[in-house]
Amino acid sequence: MGIRTDLALESKEIFEEGRSGDAGEIPGVAVDVDQWDQDIRVTRIRIQDEEGAAALGKPPGNYITIELEAGLSGTEARREEAARAVAAELKKLLPQRDGESPLQVLVVGLGNPEVTPDALGPRAAGSVQVTRHIFLLFREQAEEGMACVSVLCPGVMASTGMETAELIRKAVEIAGPDLVLAVDALAAREASRINTTIQISDTGISPGAGTGNMRKELTEKSLGRKVLAVGVPTVIDSNTLIMDSLGGFLTEPEKAEQYLAEQGASVIVTSSDIDQVVAGFSEILANAINITLHPGIYS
Amino acid sequence: MGIRTDLALESKEIFEEGRSGDAGEIPGVAVDVDQWDQDIRVTRIRIQDEEGAAALGKPPGNYITIELEAGLSGTEARREEAARAVAAELKKLLPQRDGESPLQVLVVGLGNPEVTPDALGPRAAGSVQVTRHIFLLFREQAEEGMACVSVLCPGVMASTGMETAELIRKAVEIAGPDLVLAVDALAAREASRINTTIQISDTGISPGAGTGNMRKELTEKSLGRKVLAVGVPTVIDSNTLIMDSLGGFLTEPEKAEQYLAEQGASVIVTSSDIDQVVAGFSEILANAINITLHPGIYS
Amino acid sequence: MGIRTDLALESKEIFEEGRSGDAGEIPGVAVDVDQWDQDIRVTRIRIQDEEGAAALGKPPGNYITIELEAGLSGTEARREEAARAVAAELKKLLPQRDGESPLQVLVVGLGNPEVTPDALGPRAAGSVQVTRHIFLLFREQAEEGMACVSVLCPGVMASTGMETAELIRKAVEIAGPDLVLAVDALAAREASRINTTIQISDTGISPGAGTGNMRKELTEKSLGRKVLAVGVPTVIDSNTLIMDSLGGFLTEPEKAEQYLAEQGASVIVTSSDIDQVVAGFSEILANAINITLHPGIYS
Amino acid sequence: MGIRTDLALESKEIFEEGRSGDAGEIPGVAVDVDQWDQDIRVTRIRIQDEEGAAALGKPPGNYITIELEAGLSGTEARREEAARAVAAELKKLLPQRDGESPLQVLVVGLGNPEVTPDALGPRAAGSVQVTRHIFLLFREQAEEGMACVSVLCPGVMASTGMETAELIRKAVEIAGPDLVLAVDALAAREASRINTTIQISDTGISPGAGTGNMRKELTEKSLGRKVLAVGVPTVIDSNTLIMDSLGGFLTEPEKAEQYLAEQGASVIVTSSDIDQVVAGFSEILANAINITLHPGIYS
Repeated sequence: MGIRTDLALESKEIFEEGRSGDAGEIPGVAVDVDQWDQDIRVTRIRIQDEEGAAALGKPPGNYITIELEAGLSGTEARREEAARAVAAELKKLLPQRDGESPLQVLVVGLGNPEVTPDALGPRAAGSVQVTRHIFLLFREQAEEGMACVSVLCPGVMASTGMETAELIRKAVEIAGPDLVLAVDALAAREASRINTTIQISDTGISPGAGTGNMRKELTEKSLGRKVLAVGVPTVIDSNTLIMDSLGGFLTEPEKAEQYLAEQGASVIVTSSDIDQVVAGFSEILANAINITLHPGIYS
Repeated sequence: MGIRTDLALESKEIFEEGRSGDAGEIPGVAVDVDQWDQDIRVTRIRIQDEEGAAALGKPPGNYITIELEAGLSGTEARREEAARAVAAELKKLLPQRDGESPLQVLVVGLGNPEVTPDALGPRAAGSVQVTRHIFLLFREQAEEGMACVSVLCPGVMASTGMETAELIRKAVEIAGPDLVLAVDALAAREASRINTTIQISDTGISPGAGTGNMRKELTEKSLGRKVLAVGVPTVIDSNTLIMDSLGGFLTEPEKAEQYLAEQGASVIVTSSDIDQVVAGFSEILANAINITLHPGIYS
Repeated sequence: MGIRTDLALESKEIFEEGRSGDAGEIPGVAVDVDQWDQDIRVTRIRIQDEEGAAALGKPPGNYITIELEAGLSGTEARREEAARAVAAELKKLLPQRDGESPLQVLVVGLGNPEVTPDALGPRAAGSVQVTRHIFLLFREQAEEGMACVSVLCPGVMASTGMETAELIRKAVEIAGPDLVLAVDALAAREASRINTTIQISDTGISPGAGTGNMRKELTEKSLGRKVLAVGVPTVIDSNTLIMDSLGGFLTEPEKAEQYLAEQGASVIVTSSDIDQVVAGFSEILANAINITLHPGIYS
Repeated sequence: MGIRTDLALESKEIFEEGRSGDAGEIPGVAVDVDQWDQDIRVTRIRIQDEEGAAALGKPPGNYITIELEAGLSGTEARREEAARAVAAELKKLLPQRDGESPLQVLVVGLGNPEVTPDALGPRAAGSVQVTRHIFLLFREQAEEGMACVSVLCPGVMASTGMETAELIRKAVEIAGPDLVLAVDALAAREASRINTTIQISDTGISPGAGTGNMRKELTEKSLGRKVLAVGVPTVIDSNTLIMDSLGGFLTEPEKAEQYLAEQGASVIVTSSDIDQVVAGFSEILANAINITLHPGIYS
């Protein structure tokens, strides 16, 4: 396939396009669509087994897509509603715990803060309310309904000289969280995704996904903690954009793909209003995380 | 033509592709290619008459393209060399004056500083050395080889509520320049242009060119002053990107164009490293303008 | 007087300190104090005549101070309340008009956006909702309760080479407003003002006030339009800080002033958290202006 | 003493003022003054023993002050000369090593990047050339005269929820450096220091020094590696500013100090041009570090 996407929803569309004429279910994949309100749609894709994983090219687990029909063009109130929709889904994926002690969470903002389309993670993480130091220093000030939250923005290897996954593992040693919640910028297939889509997954992050910040995996297996990932598509591979746009026109798309591969001129592109996209979605994700982790404060 | 570009060099290539088999000169267009050094090529296109204008779709005048083979990846010394190459071309286009009084120049940084691919103009203009207030307030401190320079960054109409061209006309009334030197972000046809190309022209700026900041023309006719424009491509229309990438593959490109037009999903895209592109070329253009206008200080 | 302040409230305090023992009214000055809510106090000082003007060292007119007891440390809801308090005072000072046509306002963000303590004006103005282009281009989309607003951020003379007052006069020619609403950073006497105080006045801006961005006056007389100014103190002259802090200790303060003057080491200082102060108050002022001018949208 | 400073040079001046009449040497303190060139002075203070440490209130070790007479007002060439002067001093303090393997250095940018006067560390560290990943991934591309450099910007505890010292210790575990080179913003006594002074020391960083980013010490003892610190003063305690400014005037300064302490209104202030100060000195320090660590590339 010449099409690169981090969105399970797009992987599903691609699979369905590939077997035209057969609109039935995908074996090993359960899909559930919900309308949060008039403008916000929630699609929950569950990859149940290896057959489903092979079909969609992603590891088994939950992939939830929240689509904002009006993108970021709505009012502040619409953005807050989007944050509430994301929070409702995140909440269902939190690890169970007894009521005694607060949930311990390490929020990780992946990506390069100097490169706008890659800065979603650090920007969102930078607006998450950090509380671990309050638990450490002023225990009595920690409130009901407040998780114990630490934040790491590990940067990228070209800026630190250190493996991002190693820095995260060390922060896990310090903070000892129940949960790692990673925020990352994603690659999409369709340009219109950049302004409208949020994905949550509970399968961790694989090398080469997102904007490619991870060279090693970031999973429950590698970290010993549950890993949730929240992301927003901010980039498209130009060849993916071309094949997606002309897909319905070309009679022999695989030859076009081969032609593009031979030209070797693939570039990663982004929307020209990427500053506003990253600012808007960073705010939505930070709000969603705050509502999820600190329900006693943000509600 | 489904291909949009602000670069005369690309217009020339498109014209030549359109008459395949005939590699001769274009009537009404004179072309001169120069190698500044190993990595920097200068192409001077002169549209001499209406026939040339019709062929390239641009008004008669001079269009000079400076191409950096290695893009911004080189050292600081390479960037300085690029600035010197641009300055050498700008210098030839300055209005003649007697040696008595300093040249009066209004530098205009077009574009929206909040939108990175559109921020080239304000960023470059913000690093140009302003001297008009020195001439006004401390006349004696003005040095030999220093032009009398003022700078306007008029923003965009959506941010000011005022026509950009009107604001520039008013600044011309204040500063009374011999020359208006406008810096603007451009649209290109090929993605590889974004990191490598600078264009200088002496024909002013037409509505809809560049990233579309001007709704009215900015020309010698409209302002009563000579207008030089310096720009760097930072965006591509997605349909242009598609047609440019697959052009050599499609047997009936005009049908593909029609298909894309019907899909109606054209978006303006930019390179994912646009922050670094705009930072690097803003610095090169500001240096080039400083070397051109203040040779007594920057040399 | 060795003490510099742009706040009429501080001028009043200084005058009262200077006549210790006499706590009565100041001739030519009317004062009215109001509590907006528990945390927000509104002090309206009216300088009624030349005697009052001489006492406080400011031209006759209205000076309204809004003090936030908790500074910016409160919640988002507290900031919105502060914006409503400012809007209530601004509304009383708007020029009267018949109900037919919308109020025309030119908002001017004074100051240097590159110098944080001076960036309050451009930052606040940059978040004001601009509508004049909607009236010009899409008349029918202009809503009830929406003023016709344009915005100018003229920069500073060292960055433009042009007199700030001249640029504003030209923008007045373009936009033809009923009212000029200028936002500027101010100088205070007490360090604690920097995080807590907003001043509105209807007397325009004099050269040397604020952070010194104006070399010429910006008044109804100079512009031919009513001028409202809104400001927040962001800087203190170090000698003012010293005399204010030790004023109650020194037995011969005027000798200390003379000593400081001889040392000649006065510097302009600001709070070390100035980034957060400017961000927070810019947001409050922009909200206040939006509520005032567009009551049909922000209410 | 009511005077707070991180500069050994100011501690020495304070000690000397305290024993007026006796201009001799300070026991346990060796001082050596050098003129790098006309505008750059280098003062090397060596605290030799506990007596010297008690006199200056700092642990034994080397404290080198580089003073730029013209501050940042000079040309780019002057800034480069300042970087070379700093690099010459840093080089003398590097740990000895055999010629076989490259020096391994962890550069740590202390401070909060969102608070300009505290952002010197992250800004400078962000422009240091990172090379450790080149040694790891493309061994053969590592050049002669290039150290193996990693960079950590650990943020502040209020933003991460984790102890800064713990994060640094974990990065030391990852990178295994021979040397930790920390960059931090400092507190000075005299306002004029903010624009003119750089300090290098080899004694590590104590809790409460600098702008207070460290709650635990950062020393060879705590990290098991040699620690060099490079800093620039960016803030002053307002009470320190007052006492420093009026020190020569007050007959009973200790009573003034007591008065100020009772007022309890001490605030941390900074210069109103702090954006330009931090930008300029971050560049100088990054250049100095690059010249020191990568002499084969920057020379």
